[in-house]
Amino acid sequence: MERVYKKLELVGISEKSFEDAVKNAIEKAAKTVHGLAWFEVTEQHGKITDGKITEFQAVIKAAFKVD
Amino acid sequence: MERVYKKLELVGISEKSFEDAVKNAIEKAAKTVHGLAWFEVTEQHGKITDGKITEFQAVIKAAFKVD
Amino acid sequence: MERVYKKLELVGISEKSFEDAVKNAIEKAAKTVHGLAWFEVTEQHGKITDGKITEFQAVIKAAFKVD
Amino acid sequence: MERVYKKLELVGISEKSFEDAVKNAIEKAAKTVHGLAWFEVTEQHGKITDGKITEFQAVIKAAFKVD
Amino acid sequence: MERVYKKLELVGISEKSFEDAVKNAIEKAAKTVHGLAWFEVTEQHGKITDGKITEFQAVIKAAFKVD
Amino acid sequence: MERVYKKLELVGISEKSFEDAVKNAIEKAAKTVHGLAWFEVTEQHGKITDGKITEFQAVIKAAFKVD
Amino acid sequence: MERVYKKLELVGISEKSFEDAVKNAIEKAAKTVHGLAWFEVTEQHGKITDGKITEFQAVIKAAFKVD
Amino acid sequence: MERVYKKLELVGISEKSFEDAVKNAIEKAAKTVHGLAWFEVTEQHGKITDGKITEFQAVIKAAFKVD
Amino acid sequence: MERVYKKLELVGISEKSFEDAVKNAIEKAAKTVHGLAWFEVTEQHGKITDGKITEFQAVIKAAFKVD
Amino acid sequence: MERVYKKLELVGISEKSFEDAVKNAIEKAAKTVHGLAWFEVTEQHGKITDGKITEFQAVIKAAFKVD
Amino acid sequence: MERVYKKLELVGISEKSFEDAVKNAIEKAAKTVHGLAWFEVTEQHGKITDGKITEFQAVIKAAFKVD
Amino acid sequence: MERVYKKLELVGISEKSFEDAVKNAIEKAAKTVHGLAWFEVTEQHGKITDGKITEFQAVIKAAFKVD
Repeated sequence: MERVYKKLELVGISEKSFEDAVKNAIEKAAKTVHGLAWFEVTEQHGKITDGKITEFQAVIKAAFKVD
Repeated sequence: MERVYKKLELVGISEKSFEDAVKNAIEKAAKTVHGLAWFEVTEQHGKITDGKITEFQAVIKAAFKVD
Repeated sequence: MERVYKKLELVGISEKSFEDAVKNAIEKAAKTVHGLAWFEVTEQHGKITDGKITEFQAVIKAAFKVD
Repeated sequence: MERVYKKLELVGISEKSFEDAVKNAIEKAAKTVHGLAWFEVTEQHGKITDGKITEFQAVIKAAFKVD
Repeated sequence: MERVYKKLELVGISEKSFEDAVKNAIEKAAKTVHGLAWFEVTEQHGKITDGKITEFQAVIKAAFKVD
Repeated sequence: MERVYKKLELVGISEKSFEDAVKNAIEKAAKTVHGLAWFEVTEQHGKITDGKITEFQAVIKAAFKVD
Repeated sequence: MERVYKKLELVGISEKSFEDAVKNAIEKAAKTVHGLAWFEVTEQHGKITDGKITEFQAVIKAAFKVD
Repeated sequence: MERVYKKLELVGISEKSFEDAVKNAIEKAAKTVHGLAWFEVTEQHGKITDGKITEFQAVIKAAFKVD
Repeated sequence: MERVYKKLELVGISEKSFEDAVKNAIEKAAKTVHGLAWFEVTEQHGKITDGKITEFQAVIKAAFKVD
Repeated sequence: MERVYKKLELVGISEKSFEDAVKNAIEKAAKTVHGLAWFEVTEQHGKITDGKITEFQAVIKAAFKVD
Repeated sequence: MERVYKKLELVGISEKSFEDAVKNAIEKAAKTVHGLAWFEVTEQHGKITDGKITEFQAVIKAAFKVD
Repeated sequence: MERVYKKLELVGISEKSFEDAVKNAIEKAAKTVHGLAWFEVTEQHGKITDGKITEFQAVIKAAFKVD
């Protein structure tokens, strides 16, 4: 039952939506880290160009089990 | 004019999106509580399985008028 | 390199989604302000009518370059 | 000595003052809940109509002893 | 249904009370801004002279509809 | 997969320790609520009498599944 | 121009109102401390007896000039 | 009924546990201050030496009645 | 004695230091706003290029008296 | 004198107590990281099964010296 | 190993810089308090006169060992 | 356009100033991490010896692009 998780803090960026930004961050992390178990969204911001949103930026923490 | 609202704290969970998670929480609450008037999203987190988001979890407060 | 930005605090409201609410706020601001460069979402809440979400309300800060 | 309290989150609304809004919330709660012991004010906001305050809204937590 | 509000951050000061300080801020804003709809109190502080409160200072945010 | 939890805010009090205070709150809640799934400690305070701690008070949120 | 202030944290209690609670705290402090210059209200809570507010409790910080 | 409390901010340190650290702080304060009535734990941290916890540090506020 | 201040939220950017970034923001604001009375630093961040700090960014609130 | 520490964010889980959860996290980290110097507890939560606490979960930050 | 620290909350003011303001507060405290061991900066604000910063104000907590 | 950043949390320590402490942290990180893009200062504290500041400690988050 005793186990330990480590949290990573990541910023995902997408042209489409905040949820896509979150997915980008998690999928990138999953390439090098095994055992990702949950995530938390801590900030949502973005870039504006010519009066339009051109980037959705999501700051997340993602936790994985430490072997 | 004098009136009182009560706030409930709920966690909605969806496989699809955070907004769907919020909707699940409100629709479940609406089954037993009348007069729901507004909600506030206080946390957004979720579950990761095999490197993919498998649950969107939204913590909300929902307020209803007390008769 | 030295430059200054000013932040506006806005509340966008949409019937569709939080992201649409954010877009409404930014597009309205872009009609009178030039040089909008980024935004931050600070609160997400909404209105409930008859047990359904009828308004998504997003509080944002939007920053523009001061000439 | 061992005992447990439950906290309710309420929003009281008054045309007169924030303290009247707090009192409204507590008196309404006292109609159905026994053993209210303390309260905490967490937010103070209100409504403006024609440039005048027409509602004082106080968000409070009120705690009562669980039997 | 789609609409946008702008928030102003103001500090009202009164010799009498915090509520009077809030009213001063809102009435001053109402002279130049139309459509003020709600306010939020974010800080309450004040000045002390010779061991007595000589100023009540209320920091508020006031929101108005953007046409 | 879609499900909804409700959070309760409780204050447990014990003469022994903060963990005992948390346990008291959860065991009291479990008498009337089924499906308690997790808890969060949000505040830790207590009472002092004659220079000794005579009460440990733990404020917690406890979540249970809504059927 | 160089000067230093020290802040005290006080809890004033009144049967009448939050502002009276703030005044009690400041007047008590002014009996032993000279040069009180400003105060900040950080918390507002109170006691409920038989469904009525019987104590208004204001937590404040009060600053005085250090000679 | 009208009374005033003063809060002290203390850091207790123990080799054994956080609760022992809290007790150390309160017992030290009780040697010079009468009328300590309650405490709040605001931070919990500690020292690590050779991969083991060698100090538990608890930051607390302790309140006493001002005569 | 009754008066009202308005707060602006600004981001100053400098190549030299955070204090220079604060000064840039205030001096820019002073060109169009009269009666600036105080400021508060709310965030400090910056840009890194090739492992060196190339921008100091200070987020401030600056308050001026409303006539 | 000039030196740099890096902070890790970890979640320790124990069946026994929060302090045991903290110890688990630190001992796991100490297997791969040298020079751990201090830790901070940032969250305390846990799992409930059949009305009993079955997991104590402590979120901590642990800092180690970077060579 | 068991020891207790007390924290003071101070506001240092300087015409030169925030760091000078911090130093002023600490040096003033050191005249009457022995054993100051660490400090934390909690707020940075200042005064503006004729569009220039004329005071840097740093709010700090300074801790000293209690004998 | 889609990209992901990772944030590191670091504590830089300097005998000279907070900005020097920030620089130390970033330069140390830049030795092993490529693509550092921005930083945020989250805490400023320090050590006092014989009534003088002997260490400036800056807690920062530094973000770099994940390939």
